Amino acid sequence: MSDQEYQPPKVWTWNKEGGGRFANINRPIAGPTHEKDLPVGKHPFQLYSLGTPNGVKVTIMFEELLAAGHKGAEYDAWLINIGEGDQFSSGFVSANPNSKIPALMDHTTNPPTRVFESGSILLYLAEKFGAFLPTDHVKRTEAISWLMWQMGSAPFLGGGFGHFYAYAPVKLEYPINRYAMEAKRQMDVLNRHLAENEFMAGDEYSIADMAIWPWYGALAKGLIYEAGEFLQVHEYTNVIRWTDQLGKREPVQRGRMVNRVFGEPSSQLHERHDASDFDTKTQDKIGEGT
Amino acid sequence: MSDQEYQPPKVWTWNKEGGGRFANINRPIAGPTHEKDLPVGKHPFQLYSLGTPNGVKVTIMFEELLAAGHKGAEYDAWLINIGEGDQFSSGFVSANPNSKIPALMDHTTNPPTRVFESGSILLYLAEKFGAFLPTDHVKRTEAISWLMWQMGSAPFLGGGFGHFYAYAPVKLEYPINRYAMEAKRQMDVLNRHLAENEFMAGDEYSIADMAIWPWYGALAKGLIYEAGEFLQVHEYTNVIRWTDQLGKREPVQRGRMVNRVFGEPSSQLHERHDASDFDTKTQDKIGEGT
Repeated sequence: MSDQEYQPPKVWTWNKEGGGRFANINRPIAGPTHEKDLPVGKHPFQLYSLGTPNGVKVTIMFEELLAAGHKGAEYDAWLINIGEGDQFSSGFVSANPNSKIPALMDHTTNPPTRVFESGSILLYLAEKFGAFLPTDHVKRTEAISWLMWQMGSAPFLGGGFGHFYAYAPVKLEYPINRYAMEAKRQMDVLNRHLAENEFMAGDEYSIADMAIWPWYGALAKGLIYEAGEFLQVHEYTNVIRWTDQLGKREPVQRGRMVNRVFGEPSSQLHERHDASDFDTKTQDKIGEGT
Repeated sequence: MSDQEYQPPKVWTWNKEGGGRFANINRPIAGPTHEKDLPVGKHPFQLYSLGTPNGVKVTIMFEELLAAGHKGAEYDAWLINIGEGDQFSSGFVSANPNSKIPALMDHTTNPPTRVFESGSILLYLAEKFGAFLPTDHVKRTEAISWLMWQMGSAPFLGGGFGHFYAYAPVKLEYPINRYAMEAKRQMDVLNRHLAENEFMAGDEYSIADMAIWPWYGALAKGLIYEAGEFLQVHEYTNVIRWTDQLGKREPVQRGRMVNRVFGEPSSQLHERHDASDFDTKTQDKIGEGT
């Protein structure tokens, strides 16, 4: 049957077969599937996440805050295994009714305050610590506009391009073409902006950079979706310059390791409960079987 | 040729044919296509927009601010005809390098401050006027989390479900199924939250409601994509309760008319430059040919 002949039914129904790599975690209903509380560690901030781009935004922010001397930003980063449905536990749904990583509980308030959506967590921490959000009116406005740009644009990159190019069970020309065009447009938006600005909000490194880097920096370096050649990412030279510049920052390198469950074993710190976890990671891994 | 046989080329190329209803406005490159300044009216805020859900968020906010007595929130709302490429003018690109409506210029600063992305504009105005964003820490955090939820979720509803179900030149089962499931999940997230909360941030009406209503309220009432039966939207009774409650507000009704270019002629105020434009709209329209 050709595509042209498909006619949707009158009423959509849930067929649990098919759906590609993430089929088992996509559902048409919200809410918890099982009763389980979230673990709570010793630090003021409890992060429940995974080392995907949306998770990495927040662990970079925590590492940047700590590196800048904000001792109050100590955090426990717990691994949420989305393949096993951890995001559908009653505890996780209480922290984020949308069942997506990352979710944050701020235990400096009583009761703890929930914060969900990566952009919301970045803004929350920036305001809480007065850091990585410019105080100048114009620059602050730019930072928030670009933060919002990332929130509204990346679904076309990840949920659109990445899904149809790399993960969907069938290669479909129309969606791949649609989202490739948009992914390139978004990269060009960034490339033009970064031709004239060191960082997204001008001359100040901010949460806008932290939000954009894990998605578009990875794309610019050909690290996601194996799409570097297809999208000709080498054309976006200013994005690459900025990506490399941020990638040299130690807090960024640490943030990228937290809750990471893929890539080189040496790049993976499955959970982070103490600053020393980065140093002792190798030993921890050796001891994991005990 | 069946879907299964499609193999993407090594390098994506721009085929300017095809692409459905919005093909002529989608491009793989950013930046201006022509030199043209934006018009500037008499009020402190100059809005460049269109009465789609993302535009309506902001015109509701302006009308709510004015109704609440914030006289400083007077605004000119200029029509950006995206079908004619107004969003690619040099003036518009200066206001929003992403070439999407809405874009705002705040002329209370010198030089004027640009604000882009609907979520950024809502937050900007809420902070500027100290309105429609709770001051209580927990409620404020909830409002911003839900605002960010809307920014990150609606691309799956509009750019995903709406596109493939209503606008794409070919009906494709896999994308329609993928995004129908997600649209229903998102509606269920809202439905569960609104079962226990009058508004998105609890008992206070906020910018989170203004962001979510134009998209999900319209979907709940079957007003977009003709998808009411397909998605069985009548099931989401709490979303419908909340949608009706907001829809009774006069500022919401006015905001919905601004920059609107479809539906009943009496519902359309193509541009708004004065509060009296709502009263004299009918006469204006009669005189339009002169």
